[in-house]
Amino acid sequence: MSERERPPFTRLVEQLPAMVPFVGPETLERRTGVQVRLRLGANESPFGASPCVRQAISEWAAGVSNYGDPEIYQLRRALAEHHGIGMENLVVASGIDELLGLIVRAFLEPGQVAVTSLGAYPTFNYHVEGFGGRLARVPYREWRNDLEALVETARAEGARLLFLANPDNPTGSYHSSAALLELLQRLPASCLLVLDEAYLDFAPEDRLPLDPADPRLLRLRTFSKAHGLAGMRVGYAIGAAPLVAGFDKIRLHFGVGVLAQVAALAALGDQGFVAGVAAAVADGRRDYERMAGLGRVRALPSATNFVAFDVGDAERARAVADRLWEQGVFVRRGPAPPLDRCVRITVGRPEQRRALEPILLEALHATAP
Amino acid sequence: MSERERPPFTRLVEQLPAMVPFVGPETLERRTGVQVRLRLGANESPFGASPCVRQAISEWAAGVSNYGDPEIYQLRRALAEHHGIGMENLVVASGIDELLGLIVRAFLEPGQVAVTSLGAYPTFNYHVEGFGGRLARVPYREWRNDLEALVETARAEGARLLFLANPDNPTGSYHSSAALLELLQRLPASCLLVLDEAYLDFAPEDRLPLDPADPRLLRLRTFSKAHGLAGMRVGYAIGAAPLVAGFDKIRLHFGVGVLAQVAALAALGDQGFVAGVAAAVADGRRDYERMAGLGRVRALPSATNFVAFDVGDAERARAVADRLWEQGVFVRRGPAPPLDRCVRITVGRPEQRRALEPILLEALHATAP
Repeated sequence: MSERERPPFTRLVEQLPAMVPFVGPETLERRTGVQVRLRLGANESPFGASPCVRQAISEWAAGVSNYGDPEIYQLRRALAEHHGIGMENLVVASGIDELLGLIVRAFLEPGQVAVTSLGAYPTFNYHVEGFGGRLARVPYREWRNDLEALVETARAEGARLLFLANPDNPTGSYHSSAALLELLQRLPASCLLVLDEAYLDFAPEDRLPLDPADPRLLRLRTFSKAHGLAGMRVGYAIGAAPLVAGFDKIRLHFGVGVLAQVAALAALGDQGFVAGVAAAVADGRRDYERMAGLGRVRALPSATNFVAFDVGDAERARAVADRLWEQGVFVRRGPAPPLDRCVRITVGRPEQRRALEPILLEALHATAP
Repeated sequence: MSERERPPFTRLVEQLPAMVPFVGPETLERRTGVQVRLRLGANESPFGASPCVRQAISEWAAGVSNYGDPEIYQLRRALAEHHGIGMENLVVASGIDELLGLIVRAFLEPGQVAVTSLGAYPTFNYHVEGFGGRLARVPYREWRNDLEALVETARAEGARLLFLANPDNPTGSYHSSAALLELLQRLPASCLLVLDEAYLDFAPEDRLPLDPADPRLLRLRTFSKAHGLAGMRVGYAIGAAPLVAGFDKIRLHFGVGVLAQVAALAALGDQGFVAGVAAAVADGRRDYERMAGLGRVRALPSATNFVAFDVGDAERARAVADRLWEQGVFVRRGPAPPLDRCVRITVGRPEQRRALEPILLEALHATAP
């Protein structure tokens, strides 16, 4: 059969690079033969999930032969109540990653521009390129998203999407509600703000109020971080009903499985657990700041469940990350200048931090300039 | 905020109808107040999943805080071994539904044609329309996909995709390997055959041989039917490596969760269970044929886990389905002529069939012409 022609991909897919947004730790293990001892590179929650989640999964394990409710009604109803919004303001999907793909598909024509920060979440870029959009990348400024430059670029480029993670990944920085409101005021009318709030449970109390009637933005939330359900794939978007309605035309209606739905519902019901995780993470961030001091590097202020250690330059960051990997510590480096000076480490449990400390300090000392 | 403009959707999404491929039974329950007693409308497996699946889920329930392996390595390796093919011949995704979306996106430019049978799987149509493709629909012929007309239409329309479910849904019919090989011979070189084999575990032994070097087709399989994992969302495509490579450029890399991966792996490992389900389903089909005889209607021959009862005309089919629903029996009607003469009922367990029989016979008698 080898002489047969392959039917052609679309022009776009034919020319897309064979890239993945993130190489998983399992892939790195298979490539290098190293076994991960401290999995602190993907901002998963080492604090796990609520016991209610395990109970819900166990109760429903016999129910996996049926499709999940395509309206995801129980979860959407609980989320609506939790947030004080309507069910018509909610889209649930397989994590923020899937939502980003749906958003790009729904709002960005091929050739149109999406604005993001240089080095921000690569999965957004993956979808923009995957649907034929153009990316305009705005450099970080003092380790923060440069809101003024982002909105100026959106204006100059006639952008249709502006992506902003707040709290930010990978810097951990946070913009106040006042700054976000100003950004929204200056946003062009034809540009949607895609506000990725995956890490909001770890952020300060000053938060942009929820206004489900505001058609200028979609706010993305996930059960993958503070709720500890990264492996279950549940995220949601909050937005004005006319925005939300568009997703029903293109989403994968049966995509969120039975256990994902019940696990998220159980996690949502245990807000005490989430608050406990947030408090434990805040402790851990202070612990990481202390380690940074001992290692004579800077820990960037973080409103998330990770800390970016600025080690001075990209070469050293690579050397530190390599040394950590050799010891079975999975972390990530910043993807683009100047973030590539940073090593990003997820906040671990106390015993993980105790195991990390000597390895991290050794790597910092050995690579000190 | 209501006076503010909403950022525009793409032209395509703006004009798409607000439709869903299937209305779920939960939605019907909420609309009508009826509670489903016999869930026999979505071809889920009433025979459940292997005990190995429940054990795997239970073992991994504490591991849901980590993302699943984006290469889905263990499952792909096991599938490669099971089928005697390479890992480079496999794409795993959240069910055939997601794969169909990826296939349409990868191969169909806006305006290009995809061929399918009139009344075949609506989720394929949903994706074709959702990506701006054009559908050419070929009527069924004697309750079977009309392979000759399908391939002729593909030639005449310069189609890029030809969708064929074999065994077929919703008729249950099956084409031999010889017929499929002839179809492949006549397929235009630029047209990919999308062969949906979701129900293959229930089919006769005469099966199209697997040739992973053949670039003319993608074969879609699922864990949702015989393996009883509809609620876990795992399906896969088998195809030539150059076809498979395209999917890595656009798929949702972290989309298949931890429990989905381990559940599918466990299900794959218990082939005895799958064979037992297939045998039990064959018994059940004979039981349905007997009921059809008692009800003086025709049961279409089925190579699947459901039976389509031809009740003579669309009006009667609607009346029968409505009567069944009133009694809490969830079934589906055929979606388009002539299939709308049929009521499609999933093969239930023996006790479900005993509960169904008087309700079905009453509905058939009450609506008899």
